[in-house]
Amino acid sequence: MTKATSGSLPADLALTDPLGVARLLIRQPSVSPDPGESQHLLGAMLERLGFTVTHLPFGEGAERTPNLFARLGEGAPHICYAGHTDVVPAGNEADWTHPPFAADVVDGVLYGRGACDMKGGIAACVAAIARRVQSGVGKGSISLLITGDEEGPATYGTQKVLEWMAVQGQIPDYCLVGEPTNPQTLGEMVKVGRRGSLNARIVVEGTQGHVAYPHRADNPVHRLLAVLAVLRAAPLDHGSEYFEPSSLQVTSLDVGNTATNLIPARAEARLNIRFNDLHTGAALGGWIKTVCAQHAPRAQVEISISGESFFAPPGAEMAVLQEAITSVTGLSPKLDTGGGTSDARFIARYCPVAEFGLVGASIHKVDEHAAVADMEKLTRIYEAFLKGVGV
Amino acid sequence: MTKATSGSLPADLALTDPLGVARLLIRQPSVSPDPGESQHLLGAMLERLGFTVTHLPFGEGAERTPNLFARLGEGAPHICYAGHTDVVPAGNEADWTHPPFAADVVDGVLYGRGACDMKGGIAACVAAIARRVQSGVGKGSISLLITGDEEGPATYGTQKVLEWMAVQGQIPDYCLVGEPTNPQTLGEMVKVGRRGSLNARIVVEGTQGHVAYPHRADNPVHRLLAVLAVLRAAPLDHGSEYFEPSSLQVTSLDVGNTATNLIPARAEARLNIRFNDLHTGAALGGWIKTVCAQHAPRAQVEISISGESFFAPPGAEMAVLQEAITSVTGLSPKLDTGGGTSDARFIARYCPVAEFGLVGASIHKVDEHAAVADMEKLTRIYEAFLKGVGV
Ligand SMILES: [Zn+2]
Ligand SMILES: [Zn+2]
Repeated sequence: MTKATSGSLPADLALTDPLGVARLLIRQPSVSPDPGESQHLLGAMLERLGFTVTHLPFGEGAERTPNLFARLGEGAPHICYAGHTDVVPAGNEADWTHPPFAADVVDGVLYGRGACDMKGGIAACVAAIARRVQSGVGKGSISLLITGDEEGPATYGTQKVLEWMAVQGQIPDYCLVGEPTNPQTLGEMVKVGRRGSLNARIVVEGTQGHVAYPHRADNPVHRLLAVLAVLRAAPLDHGSEYFEPSSLQVTSLDVGNTATNLIPARAEARLNIRFNDLHTGAALGGWIKTVCAQHAPRAQVEISISGESFFAPPGAEMAVLQEAITSVTGLSPKLDTGGGTSDARFIARYCPVAEFGLVGASIHKVDEHAAVADMEKLTRIYEAFLKGVGV
Repeated sequence: MTKATSGSLPADLALTDPLGVARLLIRQPSVSPDPGESQHLLGAMLERLGFTVTHLPFGEGAERTPNLFARLGEGAPHICYAGHTDVVPAGNEADWTHPPFAADVVDGVLYGRGACDMKGGIAACVAAIARRVQSGVGKGSISLLITGDEEGPATYGTQKVLEWMAVQGQIPDYCLVGEPTNPQTLGEMVKVGRRGSLNARIVVEGTQGHVAYPHRADNPVHRLLAVLAVLRAAPLDHGSEYFEPSSLQVTSLDVGNTATNLIPARAEARLNIRFNDLHTGAALGGWIKTVCAQHAPRAQVEISISGESFFAPPGAEMAVLQEAITSVTGLSPKLDTGGGTSDARFIARYCPVAEFGLVGASIHKVDEHAAVADMEKLTRIYEAFLKGVGV
């Protein structure tokens, strides 16, 4: 892996132009975990803007994950922009109308893997900072926290960088994550939190037997059905101020018994709960175990909490962000907490965090794309936000 | 396949001796479907006793099933004894204390596959008839309906013979099936009916989706759980005069989804209902389809009724059988309808039927066995029954 330097950037690259920056990044096919080239390219751009860039690879061997922390200035407030350079696989490249790593622009639309999730967002951030540098930054400072593994297991990414930042005294006052938050139109949605996610696997052992003599057997399927009936008997809640209702989805049931006259010995269920701020993963896990203990005492229950719910109460920075969005797009963004998880769940443990980026309709799909006009608008929104908070 | 004739029987075989007859039959390893030798051996014995024997193979190729109908006399009442010469596989022969097809007698116990299910029962019937022939039969007549496939699919066995008997005008007035009906002690139980058996397979198609967006998906697991909750909400009944309560057992659930963040596209359940005389298979199948239509409109439902319930109201012949059992064993047999199915379910469509045979504790197991003393007692019970009903 060669470390790109400022010298390796095209001489004519204007860092104030989000399209040029995005095309350069997309042409590095950085499927998770990012092999590192796109991070070194990004590092070179940030160095050209005056940032102090630290490459922070974590993990060994196949798990080795490139990460980057870069900071410009030391004043308060310290605003951090977080994101990822890794992308999901392109799938069958023949299905793409435009090659996934060519960054073609057709009819005002940029095509490519990562166009909106989220090299396009990073490019808008770079361009916004370049414009702020040109016009003269305020007394605040800005940093970038960029991981090379958000789409994968994320074990050696944002979490590790945050631990390093804490040790270095680099925890920001506020963090903006550049994930594509708008369902259809730029400006319609800001994420101010995310639901938590819990996975459970319930294995019920029973006693096998002939269906004609059920009293001699202990049907594990019936015990599992009783457990699931209780877990699904009532809604977990009816939503809270900023959250939709929590949702429990049974994702699999597995017995695998083909003998029609046999009561099986074992039954298994898997379920996922997306939960809001009215719950904690630990409390939900305890509830599942209690229900199992009552209705299937021989059940084995595995609980895995992939993220707690979090919520950043709207404050001064959010007001600035909303105003910037409205001034550029004319829209009043909805403050939302729906959808999947993101690395914002890790950042929320350290400082307030919000998420705003491009339109996400095409993420993870064939022909992922972003409107060039949206990239310019997003650049102006980020620029106005930075100026508004004093950077 | 050579047809055995009277001449092929051992010269010293005493047909009045159930043990000798049983050992000869067990030494033919007639795993379902019986290849035919044991039926020709039995046919030769019956011819020696004066029966008119008709071999009735049905089915083609691998399904070819030997069957035998034999009748002695033409008078009324026409009593039929029904049973099967096929046996379940021996499994691992090394696990047997005594080889499964050697018919060893040790300490008054006959060991071998089919000893109680049901070559031992057939042997007791042959011996009882031989004794009745010696002492002079009554004005009634007796027939044997013996299939070579009761333990297998039973498609080309008893059902086909009954159709043939109907065409030939050979439907009996009463039928005694010689299956091993006694759980532990000879004389304790007569079967006067059996529960019906219905299998259902329910496949629910849904709409796949991400667990974070359940409103965009249609979780087939949840629909299936709703169906099963209704089907299992209340007992099917509380039993009837001669029947235990019906029982519904969910035997399998299958989704096979290992992605924890994915709502699957398809879920499947299998269930079996053992039902008493308060239900019909058709009504239960209709009920299942109605519940599916309400809670999982896209469900595909396959219903297969392997047997309707039947019940033979105790009549004159049952009184004679009970008296015969009590006179030989000192026990008052319970009239029972529990346990699995038997070919009696087919016979019940044509005439009253009861079942009585040896002790069934070891059927289908390693070291299947029958007490020699029980075989003699059963012979005397059958003999007293035949004499009592006028044969
Ligand atoms: Zn992303
Ligand atoms: Zn049997």
